Amino acid sequence: MNSFRFQNPTALYYGKGQIEEYLAAEVTKFGKTVLLVYGGGSIQRNGLYDKVMGILRRAGVTVHELPGVEPNPRLTTVYKGIDICRNEGVDLILAVGGGSVIDCSKAIAMGTKYDGDVWEIYERRGTATGALPLGTILTLAATGSEMNSGGVITNWETKEKLGGGSPYTFPAFSFCDPENTYTVPKDQTVYGICDMLAHSFEHYFHPTEHTPLQQHLIEAVISTIVENAKFAVDHPDDYNARETMMYCSTMALNGMINMGVQGDWACHAMEHELSAIYDIPHGGGLAILFPHWMDYVMNTNPERFANLATRVFHVDSAGKSVEELAKMAIEKVREFYASIGAPQRLADYDIGRENLERMAEQAVRFRPIGNFKTLEKDDVLKILQSSL
Amino acid sequence: MNSFRFQNPTALYYGKGQIEEYLAAEVTKFGKTVLLVYGGGSIQRNGLYDKVMGILRRAGVTVHELPGVEPNPRLTTVYKGIDICRNEGVDLILAVGGGSVIDCSKAIAMGTKYDGDVWEIYERRGTATGALPLGTILTLAATGSEMNSGGVITNWETKEKLGGGSPYTFPAFSFCDPENTYTVPKDQTVYGICDMLAHSFEHYFHPTEHTPLQQHLIEAVISTIVENAKFAVDHPDDYNARETMMYCSTMALNGMINMGVQGDWACHAMEHELSAIYDIPHGGGLAILFPHWMDYVMNTNPERFANLATRVFHVDSAGKSVEELAKMAIEKVREFYASIGAPQRLADYDIGRENLERMAEQAVRFRPIGNFKTLEKDDVLKILQSSL
Repeated sequence: MNSFRFQNPTALYYGKGQIEEYLAAEVTKFGKTVLLVYGGGSIQRNGLYDKVMGILRRAGVTVHELPGVEPNPRLTTVYKGIDICRNEGVDLILAVGGGSVIDCSKAIAMGTKYDGDVWEIYERRGTATGALPLGTILTLAATGSEMNSGGVITNWETKEKLGGGSPYTFPAFSFCDPENTYTVPKDQTVYGICDMLAHSFEHYFHPTEHTPLQQHLIEAVISTIVENAKFAVDHPDDYNARETMMYCSTMALNGMINMGVQGDWACHAMEHELSAIYDIPHGGGLAILFPHWMDYVMNTNPERFANLATRVFHVDSAGKSVEELAKMAIEKVREFYASIGAPQRLADYDIGRENLERMAEQAVRFRPIGNFKTLEKDDVLKILQSSL
Repeated sequence: MNSFRFQNPTALYYGKGQIEEYLAAEVTKFGKTVLLVYGGGSIQRNGLYDKVMGILRRAGVTVHELPGVEPNPRLTTVYKGIDICRNEGVDLILAVGGGSVIDCSKAIAMGTKYDGDVWEIYERRGTATGALPLGTILTLAATGSEMNSGGVITNWETKEKLGGGSPYTFPAFSFCDPENTYTVPKDQTVYGICDMLAHSFEHYFHPTEHTPLQQHLIEAVISTIVENAKFAVDHPDDYNARETMMYCSTMALNGMINMGVQGDWACHAMEHELSAIYDIPHGGGLAILFPHWMDYVMNTNPERFANLATRVFHVDSAGKSVEELAKMAIEKVREFYASIGAPQRLADYDIGRENLERMAEQAVRFRPIGNFKTLEKDDVLKILQSSL
């Protein structure tokens, strides 16, 4: 493995009843003025908004609100939040939502303490100098943003979607109650599963040598997703199924299963270009790209794919070559995506050839992408073409 | 799974060269007066003592020393450390050693800030009210104490060995350089492996329902230990092998693989009675007890043992009953211990029947032990008798 430093300070609360019991105490550790950040109103429809507001009111907290955070959160919304935090002397940002709401809140938290335009941090032209404390109440199992320091923001003017973060943007606390995901619609549940699986794949396909424990840990998350996702999609009110998916999403991207491993991240880079132009669901884009990326890079390390076949999908290796097993692994991945109803081609989102060239160029504009296999513009173009 | 709160704030540095690069900065964050705690002199023989002292001296740090911490660290040594910390105004305790040195340092850290006898905390008659900051430099892969808040102290006067800790006793930072374990003798390497495997077993055999990801994560650690331990024992200077064992020991007991799971811990309770009287190596005692405990509790949940057989030891399940698979798992565990040269019977330490009754009584003096299966005094006695 590579030498590494790991620290994840987030206090994680899992399970039903935790919000009622501990939220007030966690919030008031940081002060009495809160910015509540949330999305399109689902938390008002399912009662979570009223529950949280009641707890905050009884704790004597003054609440300012930033509603309407978009599924791919926009820089303009971040600016609105920064203004509120600065003008109202906010002590803590409380993000109630999924990855988009939390990512937006991280940008607000960094931006409030940054002497300049927060977009510079995402463009790698600036470094965060601090952040307001941030707490989260998770309502969607997908991004893992509730227990990591990163986030993705879309600049709609420049059509750029960039990831960024800092050691300051780990949530101080996160409440993960599976019941708050009961009302997530089927398609969003599927996209969330595609996202957590994609994070696990990004870790799994890496060039770092001597990582036996990391491989097994990542396989543990992939196996749990593959074995439980279909049931979760089909049983939206099943507490244990929702809990398992939520817990997989947290563990897939909190840094605990991939210490000392240099992940690949090419598919994420390509997907960001897709949704920067077409505003498609992140998880859907990843589900389309991954099997085609796998076909393209398989020969770099077919043993890794063969391990996926035997250890995760329990393919019997008897009499099969490494290459045969590797191809079977990719076939199993395709079957899994199909089984949960994930999109499989760009055509599913009515995306044609018109912007492929531009997206390929944009994907590699900072540097070539991917660490398992390095991809230049032409490689990206070929993968996008095969995904049409 | 059970509802849970998880937070582990330790900054973990893994790999060679990390001490040279980052130790001075981490130490001086906390001040300029350090208590250096270490054991029997191995760090002086292998050069680590000189390296660390050089780094601290160049950083302008005043160093007080507590050498000679015992393999089962004693309360009297803890008292010595507390006196130094109070008299010298120590800012940070730096533990350089294995689990015993770190556990001793945790007790000193809590005791310095405790208005009373620190032993009360271990007896559950008092609660920690704070702790001095603690950093560690690990020299033995075994206990996981470098990234958790617990520790075990022996009161030689009362012949009691008790575990204790608090949220204050997570190390602020830990440096884990596999090269610092090259000089660990073969028997200590084996005991360390037995200890990390025991921690994994304590998690794995639990009564909590609906924990698919936790099961896979714990199996990941057990599999990695089982697949790599023999090579590590036979190749003490192999960097990757030492690193894998060190990393397994950290992950086995830093809380990351067993969130929301109520572990068993009966074997640890029994072993503490063994080594409180006979001062035997903790890992050796655990290796003796576990297979006999497994025989005794197997019928509580034979499916769990069958999973161990198929998922970790890759036993072909075709045509075998759950009970047959469960028995094969225990046989495989025995074979593993034998393969690395671990002790197998109490007779290997010249322990006879003379204190079995007393140890069984002591083991359950607070309450019955074990959560996978609850054990009363008679159960403990039977397991000890079968281990003779």
